[in-house]
Amino acid sequence: MFTGLCAFPLTPFNHHVVDETAFAHIVTHLVDAAVDSLGVLGSTGSYAYLSREQRMQVVRQAKSHAGSVPLMVGIGAVGTDQVLRLADDAQRAGANALLLPVMAYQPLSDEEILTFYQTVCRHVSVPVCVYDNPVTTHISLSDELKSAIAALPGIASIKIPGPASHEVAQRVQSLRRQLPDGVSIGISGDACAADGLNAGCAVWYSVCGGLFPNVAQEIVAAATRGEAQRAMAISARLEPLWMLFRKHGGSLRVIAAAATILGICAEDCLPRPLLPLSPEAFSEIAETLRSLNLQ
Amino acid sequence: MFTGLCAFPLTPFNHHVVDETAFAHIVTHLVDAAVDSLGVLGSTGSYAYLSREQRMQVVRQAKSHAGSVPLMVGIGAVGTDQVLRLADDAQRAGANALLLPVMAYQPLSDEEILTFYQTVCRHVSVPVCVYDNPVTTHISLSDELKSAIAALPGIASIKIPGPASHEVAQRVQSLRRQLPDGVSIGISGDACAADGLNAGCAVWYSVCGGLFPNVAQEIVAAATRGEAQRAMAISARLEPLWMLFRKHGGSLRVIAAAATILGICAEDCLPRPLLPLSPEAFSEIAETLRSLNLQ
Repeated sequence: MFTGLCAFPLTPFNHHVVDETAFAHIVTHLVDAAVDSLGVLGSTGSYAYLSREQRMQVVRQAKSHAGSVPLMVGIGAVGTDQVLRLADDAQRAGANALLLPVMAYQPLSDEEILTFYQTVCRHVSVPVCVYDNPVTTHISLSDELKSAIAALPGIASIKIPGPASHEVAQRVQSLRRQLPDGVSIGISGDACAADGLNAGCAVWYSVCGGLFPNVAQEIVAAATRGEAQRAMAISARLEPLWMLFRKHGGSLRVIAAAATILGICAEDCLPRPLLPLSPEAFSEIAETLRSLNLQ
Repeated sequence: MFTGLCAFPLTPFNHHVVDETAFAHIVTHLVDAAVDSLGVLGSTGSYAYLSREQRMQVVRQAKSHAGSVPLMVGIGAVGTDQVLRLADDAQRAGANALLLPVMAYQPLSDEEILTFYQTVCRHVSVPVCVYDNPVTTHISLSDELKSAIAALPGIASIKIPGPASHEVAQRVQSLRRQLPDGVSIGISGDACAADGLNAGCAVWYSVCGGLFPNVAQEIVAAATRGEAQRAMAISARLEPLWMLFRKHGGSLRVIAAAATILGICAEDCLPRPLLPLSPEAFSEIAETLRSLNLQ
């Protein structure tokens, strides 16, 4: 399941509860589009803001709509015991894979991080994808540590953040040499996904693909056919969207606004303390969606 | 309750559960020493690694041993709704004040941070102390934002991290001018507590004082009597302890090792993913405790 387009849906909220109707709408749209896999409760799925019960609710809902599409579930938490319980919950609800960040409160040593991944991998029975994104987890994994983690039995993939476009190819190739063959590298950071796929990433862990699966699939298909220029051209056309991601401190608030503009989610669909963007930002996003035909 | 020595006890673990015997021992020792207040479930109390149920267990235990010593309870979590539930739990269990960090997962805007504090302050009925420590929360509060938060009804104190020693006086005085009079400034970062108290901090939010209350009280008493040099001299004598804090990435792992060495806690008393320090570090800490007569 760690190839192609892994679509990361939002977990939309409405008045402090998970908006099941909106979530079902989003997941069903992705399943109808035949994405290669679903990645719920990633950063786009706001896992860090949800209670254990809410996370269970999201996984059950996702599974009930996923049909035959493989389901990856984020199980991130600060404490290891919490992570193990979330892994149990996710597996019981039918997760086909787990997405595992290591989150920093106290700064952690490499030994603590490796032991953490070891503990979780020994505990679970489905494959694990390593989540690497220092912007949210506040942990930077060196290539040496990534390679030690990737060698653990049970690790199937690693989700890397997008470096600057001109560095993607070198970054992916260098990491590829250091990781076991069986562990796929997946690119996140939508703006450099085409670069990542062209450089040999097997999967795109995609925020944009969690709401707009068709255009994301076009990029993946082009890269997979070896049409690197075409993949780049489609991504370049989406530059106004990537620009909005950069402008608003990441993709989450923009994608949440887009889901609202499309009529899928409530106006205020982010979990607190996150606030919706300003009316001006909503207007700009609406205009961008129109101009890109993302409606 | 926001003056003098606020002692922050460890939450000791033993085989994945809270070690109630060890915790009772630590809290009782602090109450017997007549510390001015207790601060449970701070960073030293490992709040970020505990489940809601474990936090409730810790607050109930602390309250049952606190007698007339005021009890402040940390209620930090990434999601606002989780924080509100933790606040309810803590208040029901008898908390006299709440310690409130804002924790980053997605980067937060100043508006989001201020709204977060506003939401919690409106919800609770006991005074709130703002927890500021970018090393663990990954959020830096500007003085302007601190001042806006401190002006909210319900905010009673602000716990600031220790800057470099030579900057403490200027830092405290500059902040004092920007905060409402009724809001006390408390110093944390044990190594610069004497500087902070001498510069006008009303309270020391103390890790060292959570295990060694007597020596911490001597520093507070000297500073309170205006004997600045004497406060500095006692702190300087403890420099080998401050050096160990710096060497081992903060105070927590060192204080946990000290509690083990004193026979209060199990050998491995930290919640995972945190690992106990090496046998060599334990030896060095034991030697330091002996030389400082902290036994």
